[in-house]
Amino acid sequence: TPESAERTAVPGVATGLAVTGAGGDVLFVEAAAMESEHGGLELTGQLGDVMKESAQIALSYLRANAERLGVPIEDLTHRRVHVHFPAGAVPKDGPSAGVTLTTALASLLTGRLVRAEIGMTGEVSLTGRVLPIGGVKQKLLAAHRAGLTEVIIPARNGPDLDDLPEDVLAQLTVHQVSDVADVLRIALEPAAGAATKAA
Amino acid sequence: TPESAERTAVPGVATGLAVTGAGGDVLFVEAAAMESEHGGLELTGQLGDVMKESAQIALSYLRANAERLGVPIEDLTHRRVHVHFPAGAVPKDGPSAGVTLTTALASLLTGRLVRAEIGMTGEVSLTGRVLPIGGVKQKLLAAHRAGLTEVIIPARNGPDLDDLPEDVLAQLTVHQVSDVADVLRIALEPAAGAATKAA
Amino acid sequence: TPESAERTAVPGVATGLAVTGAGGDVLFVEAAAMESEHGGLELTGQLGDVMKESAQIALSYLRANAERLGVPIEDLTHRRVHVHFPAGAVPKDGPSAGVTLTTALASLLTGRLVRAEIGMTGEVSLTGRVLPIGGVKQKLLAAHRAGLTEVIIPARNGPDLDDLPEDVLAQLTVHQVSDVADVLRIALEPAAGAATKAA
Amino acid sequence: TPESAERTAVPGVATGLAVTGAGGDVLFVEAAAMESEHGGLELTGQLGDVMKESAQIALSYLRANAERLGVPIEDLTHRRVHVHFPAGAVPKDGPSAGVTLTTALASLLTGRLVRAEIGMTGEVSLTGRVLPIGGVKQKLLAAHRAGLTEVIIPARNGPDLDDLPEDVLAQLTVHQVSDVADVLRIALEPAAGAATKAA
Amino acid sequence: TPESAERTAVPGVATGLAVTGAGGDVLFVEAAAMESEHGGLELTGQLGDVMKESAQIALSYLRANAERLGVPIEDLTHRRVHVHFPAGAVPKDGPSAGVTLTTALASLLTGRLVRAEIGMTGEVSLTGRVLPIGGVKQKLLAAHRAGLTEVIIPARNGPDLDDLPEDVLAQLTVHQVSDVADVLRIALEPAAGAATKAA
Amino acid sequence: TPESAERTAVPGVATGLAVTGAGGDVLFVEAAAMESEHGGLELTGQLGDVMKESAQIALSYLRANAERLGVPIEDLTHRRVHVHFPAGAVPKDGPSAGVTLTTALASLLTGRLVRAEIGMTGEVSLTGRVLPIGGVKQKLLAAHRAGLTEVIIPARNGPDLDDLPEDVLAQLTVHQVSDVADVLRIALEPAAGAATKAA
Ligand SMILES: [Ca+2]
Ligand SMILES: [Ca+2]
Ligand SMILES: [Ca+2]
Ligand SMILES: [Ca+2]
Ligand SMILES: [Ca+2]
Ligand SMILES: [Ca+2]
Ligand SMILES: [Ca+2]
Ligand SMILES: [Ca+2]
Ligand SMILES: [Ca+2]
Ligand SMILES: [Ca+2]
Ligand SMILES: [Ca+2]
Ligand SMILES: [Ca+2]
Repeated sequence: TPESAERTAVPGVATGLAVTGAGGDVLFVEAAAMESEHGGLELTGQLGDVMKESAQIALSYLRANAERLGVPIEDLTHRRVHVHFPAGAVPKDGPSAGVTLTTALASLLTGRLVRAEIGMTGEVSLTGRVLPIGGVKQKLLAAHRAGLTEVIIPARNGPDLDDLPEDVLAQLTVHQVSDVADVLRIALEPAAGAATKAA
Repeated sequence: TPESAERTAVPGVATGLAVTGAGGDVLFVEAAAMESEHGGLELTGQLGDVMKESAQIALSYLRANAERLGVPIEDLTHRRVHVHFPAGAVPKDGPSAGVTLTTALASLLTGRLVRAEIGMTGEVSLTGRVLPIGGVKQKLLAAHRAGLTEVIIPARNGPDLDDLPEDVLAQLTVHQVSDVADVLRIALEPAAGAATKAA
Repeated sequence: TPESAERTAVPGVATGLAVTGAGGDVLFVEAAAMESEHGGLELTGQLGDVMKESAQIALSYLRANAERLGVPIEDLTHRRVHVHFPAGAVPKDGPSAGVTLTTALASLLTGRLVRAEIGMTGEVSLTGRVLPIGGVKQKLLAAHRAGLTEVIIPARNGPDLDDLPEDVLAQLTVHQVSDVADVLRIALEPAAGAATKAA
Repeated sequence: TPESAERTAVPGVATGLAVTGAGGDVLFVEAAAMESEHGGLELTGQLGDVMKESAQIALSYLRANAERLGVPIEDLTHRRVHVHFPAGAVPKDGPSAGVTLTTALASLLTGRLVRAEIGMTGEVSLTGRVLPIGGVKQKLLAAHRAGLTEVIIPARNGPDLDDLPEDVLAQLTVHQVSDVADVLRIALEPAAGAATKAA
Repeated sequence: TPESAERTAVPGVATGLAVTGAGGDVLFVEAAAMESEHGGLELTGQLGDVMKESAQIALSYLRANAERLGVPIEDLTHRRVHVHFPAGAVPKDGPSAGVTLTTALASLLTGRLVRAEIGMTGEVSLTGRVLPIGGVKQKLLAAHRAGLTEVIIPARNGPDLDDLPEDVLAQLTVHQVSDVADVLRIALEPAAGAATKAA
Repeated sequence: TPESAERTAVPGVATGLAVTGAGGDVLFVEAAAMESEHGGLELTGQLGDVMKESAQIALSYLRANAERLGVPIEDLTHRRVHVHFPAGAVPKDGPSAGVTLTTALASLLTGRLVRAEIGMTGEVSLTGRVLPIGGVKQKLLAAHRAGLTEVIIPARNGPDLDDLPEDVLAQLTVHQVSDVADVLRIALEPAAGAATKAA
């Protein structure tokens, strides 16, 4: 999928799946960090309250579990994080971008790219549980249309896969997860220096 | 009860009992802490004003009574506390999560797990009084359905137990409390190193 | 009165008198303090604007007159004060809790308990004047019903005592005050170490 | 006038004149200061926007002209000023308390009492100009009824004096001012140590 | 014109021209500065959003161009600036006070008085461009009525001068400007020490 | 085009293209910086929420990519940035000023002027992607009318060029871009000292 390849070519961008008025769609979450006297989280993209809370939860989860996840988070007291959902004029809401937000932030903070062929959806709780969301059928059809070959969905949404045509499912690797740490394991490329280190 | 066992397997999570449009239900309160230049309390889960105040009260109670309760609270001037109520898109309100909030925060700050088989409900005042709440019947039926075997309710709600079927009551250990310090004594597992220390 | 004895058994709690939809009632004001980088006043209990201002006035009065009143207030630049009015879900408003707020805060800051048998009502101005309020009849009947034996009312409300049945008045000691310093003198127990010191 | 004598017996209180639904009335402005990490202005008494701005203007005027007026203002960066208008539940608005606010604050900061027999009304601009207000007739009748013997009004309101009965005017000393520095000169008692110093 | 002479007799006051419901009018912008831990801009006079933004723009223009304009602006990080538009109870809005705001602030910061015989109107952009405004005819008639002899208007409003009676124009010196630096050059008196320095 | 030449004669000003009720129009974005204790972004010009977010995105993009773009951004922790859209009283909204905002800020921070003959439109994402916008036909007609000879549009808006008359297109150089770094390369003049350095 050319678009997601181009978009995820820098750390801090992850590919999400959403339901809009016109069916399912692929959307991109962008995260950037900058020096600042104080830490903080800046959110743009005409986000509703639930989606803003999802971003707070994603950042808190990473900060509270930084050591275990291998995410270097210490310097967030003097770095400000900005998360944006293009397109900027389209209102967006809901909890289902939780896994995408967590992945984009983990990518930003570790410098590891998000795999371009993968799209994802799922609510995340503060302890990292992946909770079920709606619109699985439309989201996976949109992922397929956009040329993605792997998708991550909440384990509790497994039954929704029955609603998808068999030929679509045959072309998608579907990961069913219940812990967002597994999302990071599946979606993030190895660290740039990893191969070298192993050598 | 598999779900509460899984959810309360990390410090900072307590099992509450609530009344929703569809009867009683089990809900989980999640708390996490992270390094921060300033202390502070971050609340998510689409909480109403009364529930936000319950969280402020729970934290103030623990800070003002830290020494007596054995809760290490000193470092809260440089740690930020985040409390989340999943599911993130469902609006929630009311004072009855007071005991659950206090327990989740005490668990987070002491590192002691909350016992998985226990659910709780009750308003908490700033001095730690446990005040009566509504919906005891639906809440205890929900606890029973969810496989919990012990529940904590306010002492002043004792008369409401008459409304429950005898077979349900026979399978539930009901703790009637008037001081939230008793809730903590009942609901928290011993500290991890306690047995060792005693040896 | 068992309830007020139990509630006022810790410093920082005073017994107020209020008018509700269902006549007069006894309510408790709870205050607690905690270490904090910055001072500040935290208010909970679904308070209206006038009642929030009453709490600001009470705290300012004590800070501006600390030395004269013997209230140790210096450390309030690094202690945060939380005032709560149970029950948490019931909206409350009006200026008549001014004396109760001032007494609860003075109790908290001096460590002197509030006398359990006493209830009070009255607006307080920034210079400590006790101003008249409404509902004296219902409030004193409620105090009597709750087993309180002493009440404090504004001097300017003296004429309202005519509306009360003689047998109720016969069982109540009524203090009519115009300066909140007199309220503190009447309502606070001696300091714990006072007898010892005198010995 | 007994009430204003009692109210203005401490520094920081000045007697204003207002128009209410029930004609003119006497009101008191109370100011207090307290130690604080940061300076700031706290306003209570259910004040409207215009009245809140009047308080900001009064404080800025005194700070910007402190040296010329002999008002010790340096320590306001570490003292917080609280201004209250009793009664606390009555909404109040309008610019005409400007001179009263300036006088109360100057009294607080210099420790000089406000003369008990004097009432005042007038808008104040940031450079200390006294601007005309409405309701002069009702305000002076109220001052007279309350037993005040001197009043301060804006010079531009001079023509309004024609509306008052001659016998009332005969018992009132009316000061017509255009600069708020003159209000302070007329309304403030000499400093407590002034006579001693002169001896 | 007696009023503007009196009002502009201190640094920080400039004479503006406005359109009100009753035709054109002269208004005064007052600025004052005071010591403060933090810089900042305080606005009073019941200003609308556009007028508040005009004040922010005026201050930013002076800060960004301080050196070129000879305005000593360094100490604004520890001085607070207050701008007030009397009369305090009259709501005001619109961008046309931009030149007046910039001139009042420059007068305050340099200590140079604003010339008493001059009135002005015009929007100012962040780079100091003077942009056209409405109501030139009413504003100049008001200036003439108030006894002002010079006015400053935006160059792009030149054509509006045709609407004025010849005898009024004959008595007014009209400055047409496109850069607010020219407004400052025309409207500010020389620095108090300038003649001495030149001697 | 005389106006844009005059407006863009200082660093920090870029020429945008907008659609208004009356068709397309040219607008100018002005940016200025000033010393401040804290960094921060100040926005004026009656901007809507989406446009305010565009300014946050532009500044975050430049801060996060400062080194790669050659934009000296370090000192933004002690410099405050103000962005203004004249005319001040006209409400403005939408994401299509993203490229203009980014260019004006880059001009301000590098001191390089924006080329006077160039107008631009396009949404910018946080990673610098240039996203499509509406109104290309009206915007390019307005650019042509205003005497601009070059325009920058999003690459994805290429098809919209078919709607323009051939003679207009013949007189405009149209740059189609997908990365805002290309906008900066096209629109900014070389640094003032660049030729000297090369010599
Ligand atoms: Ca798409
Ligand atoms: Ca959603
Ligand atoms: Ca459930
Ligand atoms: Ca509830
Ligand atoms: Ca009661
Ligand atoms: Ca009341
Ligand atoms: Ca009165
Ligand atoms: Ca008034
Ligand atoms: Ca006038
Ligand atoms: Ca205007
Ligand atoms: Ca134009
Ligand atoms: Ca737009």
